[in-house]
Amino acid sequence: MESRAKRVFKYVDEEVDAVLFMNEEEPNLDTMFPYVTGTTSGLFEQCIAAAWPNGNVDLITNLLEETSARDSVANVIVFRDKKEKDEHVKDLFGKAKRIGVNAKGLSYNHLMELQKLLPKAKFIDVSAGMIRAKLVKDSDELGRLRRACDIASKVGREIPESLRPGMTESEGAAEINYRMQKYGASGPSFTTIASFGANSAEPHHEPDETKLRRSDIALFDYGALFRKYGSDVTRTFFVGRATAEQKRMYNTVLDAQLAAIAEIRPGMNGKDVDAIARNIIDSTEFKGLLIHSLGHSIGLSVHDGGRMAPNVDLVLEEGMVLTVEPGIYMKGKGGVRIEDDIVVTKNGCEVLTSAPKELMVI
Amino acid sequence: MESRAKRVFKYVDEEVDAVLFMNEEEPNLDTMFPYVTGTTSGLFEQCIAAAWPNGNVDLITNLLEETSARDSVANVIVFRDKKEKDEHVKDLFGKAKRIGVNAKGLSYNHLMELQKLLPKAKFIDVSAGMIRAKLVKDSDELGRLRRACDIASKVGREIPESLRPGMTESEGAAEINYRMQKYGASGPSFTTIASFGANSAEPHHEPDETKLRRSDIALFDYGALFRKYGSDVTRTFFVGRATAEQKRMYNTVLDAQLAAIAEIRPGMNGKDVDAIARNIIDSTEFKGLLIHSLGHSIGLSVHDGGRMAPNVDLVLEEGMVLTVEPGIYMKGKGGVRIEDDIVVTKNGCEVLTSAPKELMVI
Repeated sequence: MESRAKRVFKYVDEEVDAVLFMNEEEPNLDTMFPYVTGTTSGLFEQCIAAAWPNGNVDLITNLLEETSARDSVANVIVFRDKKEKDEHVKDLFGKAKRIGVNAKGLSYNHLMELQKLLPKAKFIDVSAGMIRAKLVKDSDELGRLRRACDIASKVGREIPESLRPGMTESEGAAEINYRMQKYGASGPSFTTIASFGANSAEPHHEPDETKLRRSDIALFDYGALFRKYGSDVTRTFFVGRATAEQKRMYNTVLDAQLAAIAEIRPGMNGKDVDAIARNIIDSTEFKGLLIHSLGHSIGLSVHDGGRMAPNVDLVLEEGMVLTVEPGIYMKGKGGVRIEDDIVVTKNGCEVLTSAPKELMVI
Repeated sequence: MESRAKRVFKYVDEEVDAVLFMNEEEPNLDTMFPYVTGTTSGLFEQCIAAAWPNGNVDLITNLLEETSARDSVANVIVFRDKKEKDEHVKDLFGKAKRIGVNAKGLSYNHLMELQKLLPKAKFIDVSAGMIRAKLVKDSDELGRLRRACDIASKVGREIPESLRPGMTESEGAAEINYRMQKYGASGPSFTTIASFGANSAEPHHEPDETKLRRSDIALFDYGALFRKYGSDVTRTFFVGRATAEQKRMYNTVLDAQLAAIAEIRPGMNGKDVDAIARNIIDSTEFKGLLIHSLGHSIGLSVHDGGRMAPNVDLVLEEGMVLTVEPGIYMKGKGGVRIEDDIVVTKNGCEVLTSAPKELMVI
């Protein structure tokens, strides 16, 4: 595996002596932290990682997570309290004049703290490069994502048999999470969405006590976390029956998704892929009802930096892993979304998730 | 319910015209965002909230989460793209000269973005007040936490019956998550820890394929999320048998926990509560093996700002909700932790979690 520190520096355009990463408390953790240290377990709240141009990685950790730290590729430095931590930071970065920071993962609070601790250093935002570094996956990352996708696909195939009228959204989500973990996921990669009936018109609806009724739409958006890497899949089903309008909705979304997937290849701009799907939807009675981006990069977080969206330039490269998830949302009525994960290959893309997606009335 | 904006201003010592909150992408979301807006659903990535001294709250949201936003107490402003969002920010904060920000939840990236957008404004860190605002729970928050604690307790009582030799840590965690969600949780409040045998010596171990064997320690640390508020409970069991040393470990931890809980009351300093438990452990053969804080505040995140720890001043007040979780960790052998959630009451504290915690060999 190529040193992640070297990889980080390959993508940093600014001139810096080191790149420093620092976590707040959960949930405000920088996904670049496990990226650069290679840790597969542990939170490392209030801990610090450093990447150096020669490929070295240092990890300043508390006692609590020393074991997880020792399992990583990093050189481990343990502190007992804040004072010791501050001394380690001063020792480690004392000679660095220009320190790169990932401004999207670093809190303003920590920036001020670091400025006080290292008053002679200049802190330079290198977050643009960090997003690029994370976008193209190496073989280790791709292996983990494949496992995360396989688990989600297996569960996706089992959803229809697990549905029964009267079950709540919470129960539906619980069923999915249970199966993912049983098949080897460390957990869901984000809060599983189960939305029934009109709730499906709200893309980020959180599961509640709404019960599944005959003639409902049932939408599930979920993903598996495998060694910190997460998949992201959506499947939409019709319970009992699908109206003519619902069938048109579904098939429009599916057409849009397949057309977009067929065109993905290195060199394409993500906004042009978005336009392929969006134009198909906008050429129908459902014009304007795709109210989000077509897709986003996945990896150490479910929204990993890159997006395929109008007005966003993202030139696709081999090894990028993205969701393709068009949807149509009719307020008060319901929504349909179909989402798969793909990896950009040399000549096109490979779809990593495989649960069936033809229109299904169950 | 007291306006959350008024509550925010009650705890801000600095002179500011407004307090602004802004989310990055998941997981880097500011827990003050749902706090001040009262949203119970939705992520609001890249969205902005404003609290004003008169009690008003504004929420600048994308289309994706407009429905969740409209369910909140905030005045909702919808944007279609980045340009529209920037215009709304300029309109809303154009007259504010001193803008408070929660520097622990705001990224350095967004701070720079805001400085460009509002060049005449001064941005002032009010995070110390935000931590204090979140520490003391109002009745709505306490209601949600009680539900989160009840769900975790119910599941805790069921753990012994669900264990069987040969099951993996992942399966153990899956079982807990499934039951929590079945009982009404929207999900786990953090990645459920199931650690068997020597893995239990690592406080933040993530569940893997390790199998449960006879004579293992089995430790479970988990919590339920209920309308964005999370509980946090740990129970430790012995499988088949407990050695004399393991029994001493367990009873020392339990003694330490009960002694600490007995002394908690308003006016106590958290570090003195920590010392009660720590001194009990340090007076035994297990001296020095409590390698983390005694407890932490819970609420919208599982580590909600306050801690009961050596060298940390936290004067307890009625309405604070904290974990009490002493542990003993013997590297290579195993660990014991017992954790409950308490709310500080007028004269002492009430334990909110109720699963049995006497030594159990199952």
